[in-house]
Amino acid sequence: MSTAGADLDFDLVVLGGGSGGLAGAFRAAQHGARVALLEPGELGGTCVNVGCVPKKAMWIASELADRIALASRLGFDVPPSPGFDWAGFIADRQRYIHGIHGSYRKRLDEAGIVLMPSRGRLDDAHTVACEDGTRLRAGHILLATGARPRALGIPGGELAWSSDDFFDLCDPPGRVAMIGGGYIAVELAGVLQALGSRVDLFARSERLLSHADDELAVQLAENYRQQGVHLAFGYRLAAIERDGERLRLHDQAGAHSDAYDVVISAVGRQANTAGLGLEDAGIELDGDCNVVVDAQQRASLDHVSAVGDVTGKATLTPVAIAAARKAMDRVFGGQADARLDYEGIPTVVFAHPPLGAVGLTEAQARARHGDGAVHAYRVDFRPMAHALADRPVRSLFKLVCVGEARRVVGIHLLGEGADEILQGFAVAMKKGITLDDLHDTVAIHPTSAEELVLMR
Amino acid sequence: MSTAGADLDFDLVVLGGGSGGLAGAFRAAQHGARVALLEPGELGGTCVNVGCVPKKAMWIASELADRIALASRLGFDVPPSPGFDWAGFIADRQRYIHGIHGSYRKRLDEAGIVLMPSRGRLDDAHTVACEDGTRLRAGHILLATGARPRALGIPGGELAWSSDDFFDLCDPPGRVAMIGGGYIAVELAGVLQALGSRVDLFARSERLLSHADDELAVQLAENYRQQGVHLAFGYRLAAIERDGERLRLHDQAGAHSDAYDVVISAVGRQANTAGLGLEDAGIELDGDCNVVVDAQQRASLDHVSAVGDVTGKATLTPVAIAAARKAMDRVFGGQADARLDYEGIPTVVFAHPPLGAVGLTEAQARARHGDGAVHAYRVDFRPMAHALADRPVRSLFKLVCVGEARRVVGIHLLGEGADEILQGFAVAMKKGITLDDLHDTVAIHPTSAEELVLMR
Repeated sequence: MSTAGADLDFDLVVLGGGSGGLAGAFRAAQHGARVALLEPGELGGTCVNVGCVPKKAMWIASELADRIALASRLGFDVPPSPGFDWAGFIADRQRYIHGIHGSYRKRLDEAGIVLMPSRGRLDDAHTVACEDGTRLRAGHILLATGARPRALGIPGGELAWSSDDFFDLCDPPGRVAMIGGGYIAVELAGVLQALGSRVDLFARSERLLSHADDELAVQLAENYRQQGVHLAFGYRLAAIERDGERLRLHDQAGAHSDAYDVVISAVGRQANTAGLGLEDAGIELDGDCNVVVDAQQRASLDHVSAVGDVTGKATLTPVAIAAARKAMDRVFGGQADARLDYEGIPTVVFAHPPLGAVGLTEAQARARHGDGAVHAYRVDFRPMAHALADRPVRSLFKLVCVGEARRVVGIHLLGEGADEILQGFAVAMKKGITLDDLHDTVAIHPTSAEELVLMR
Repeated sequence: MSTAGADLDFDLVVLGGGSGGLAGAFRAAQHGARVALLEPGELGGTCVNVGCVPKKAMWIASELADRIALASRLGFDVPPSPGFDWAGFIADRQRYIHGIHGSYRKRLDEAGIVLMPSRGRLDDAHTVACEDGTRLRAGHILLATGARPRALGIPGGELAWSSDDFFDLCDPPGRVAMIGGGYIAVELAGVLQALGSRVDLFARSERLLSHADDELAVQLAENYRQQGVHLAFGYRLAAIERDGERLRLHDQAGAHSDAYDVVISAVGRQANTAGLGLEDAGIELDGDCNVVVDAQQRASLDHVSAVGDVTGKATLTPVAIAAARKAMDRVFGGQADARLDYEGIPTVVFAHPPLGAVGLTEAQARARHGDGAVHAYRVDFRPMAHALADRPVRSLFKLVCVGEARRVVGIHLLGEGADEILQGFAVAMKKGITLDDLHDTVAIHPTSAEELVLMR
């Protein structure tokens, strides 16, 4: 397969060492493929470095802050809002992340995968050039270059920090403006407020989390207000301006906001497809510059696959990993039909409290099945820990069912423990359950999870 | 239906106002039955008063203590072992429990159920006598009198406290001997140790939790030792003796233990069937004095049902509730086949960390299906919060599968979040899942629950 001009031959060249790229590389190597993986930065991509992992770490810190406040109301001799050594915690967090980097490197070595610390660029449809000029001939190419925060296209937009920059913070900012109403904005706002910042959130939309079920989104907004986050909906940001050391927002009507120490922009993400020579090599991108793939992750060239955020489809780490494995099972494992089922993917927003969902919202179910066929069940309760402390924190769990048989098509959880409760119910829903199947399972008492089998 | 000598007529007389009795009374009333419920003590029985609810409250306190210790390692300015106002917490706990009593009373009123604050005794198979001499003629009788701690039948056994007495504690005891290796001993030992007592546990058995999967029981014992609980297995208790203000255990070989402030006995429970006139009325008891029932909760007389701990079967609150509802659906709801499925009942031991299980242990699966058919999968990991603090706390999750298809017949979870993770997987397992069904569900990252869909 070697060709004049190419220095090295591989069965697979992977562009991007994030979760999807790594999972694909490992799976292809398991199938016996010779694999090169190109990653100019740290291994683990967004998830490990500026996404899931450091985000969850910060969420854990913010949950600890909340538990301490709860404990101070329940007889423990602790201050309700103790000091927090942010920089020290970041050091612990980064030590943990470095451990993940190390374990990836070890696993790549063990699998015999060649790691090139370089960007790649397609010279032609079968040749990837590294920054040092090395040219790799690839039988198959896996695109897994991920995505990055979308820039604010307004005057002063460069003054705003991105979520990437958030993870560089070594001191808690006092006053923060969060731009956006999606899950990143919600997660970062919750963490910062819980760790002592005062956060104002400005969303273009009329509510938080446009993909979430309406009732849960409304309840979450109420929770955030109780925690002291100021929420401005329908906000049209026009510009960001300096005001001494601080920053102010201007809206399209010319009104100025308060002054903030930090403005964080979380207005969506943009696939990393520029500068890779994709279009010249004949690989189709959509209008948002995502790589176009079919249901088996096949790009517009048969020997090119793409997975993860670069495809713009269900941009979640476990989806990238599962899709990459399926794609490599198809290409190198002789499993011609391998494909990831994009239905029934559970997701959790690490908000305060966390919000988990799988399947259809009530509105989606009504649109798909008709109003008459949809039956929603909800339970609104106070978890025991909060009831003991007489705190107003409530959980809202909701089931969306269709038809006579009350087939469960959506599960929506807002509340303490939702992050851990959802996974098993997602397995059950994918298997096909009705409300009766939930009722027929004995409850585990006293838990929050039992509310899902007791709903009537 | 009225008879000479009976003062009042009811379609149903319920003996016992615990979870099962209440659930049965409410369900029968829904079906239109005239119901009397006899309860000499507080409503809610063991669960609400000296079981699940106060136990979970104490567990919440002990988990808060653990979170504070974790927080002190992760940069929060809190003492690792802060003072704890035990009496104040008990006041919060009892306020919460009084709220439950009140809500039961309100619901009984609303349902038109006659509450008699009395013990009942069967004068004959259709007549229940109250303590004040009132006689109730009953079309149907539901026995739900629960169980109580089993006494230690040894010299000085009366010096030991029961789990009921534990809930009267208003001060944390310094040195505690816990007698027993079952779930009550494990739960109380964990709570006391976490809240500052020094606990030695003495078990007759050679391990903790004889019903749990071996590997998890061993791992839990290791966790308890790390927390400072001293575990003595194969211990043959012969007597308890006073030593000044304290107590010492003697074993059958004549050896003396250390001296303890409190000895707590948790050596099993005994059905409350004495003094009710059951046998004279023709109701059969087994050798352990449990009411004998068939698969539909029918006692040896057709118009008598029994549910919950008094039957000695799967003595869990949600089982009593579900069984009572099914029995009343059968008797008053025209559902002749109604019965609770006793297979696949999930349970959680609120240990430190919690231990959850549904289905067969590996040993049970091997005994039932043969060694060759059983495939066990396990994952042993450190939850992120503990990894960040570089604590040695690990979780151990295990799947027990059978046959080529790897049908899941047992799920065993030891670790943070196990209490909330299990419920959904129990629904899925009851529906019938294979290892592939777990793999086909996308993971929720980063959680502990995702480990269950990633096990290989």
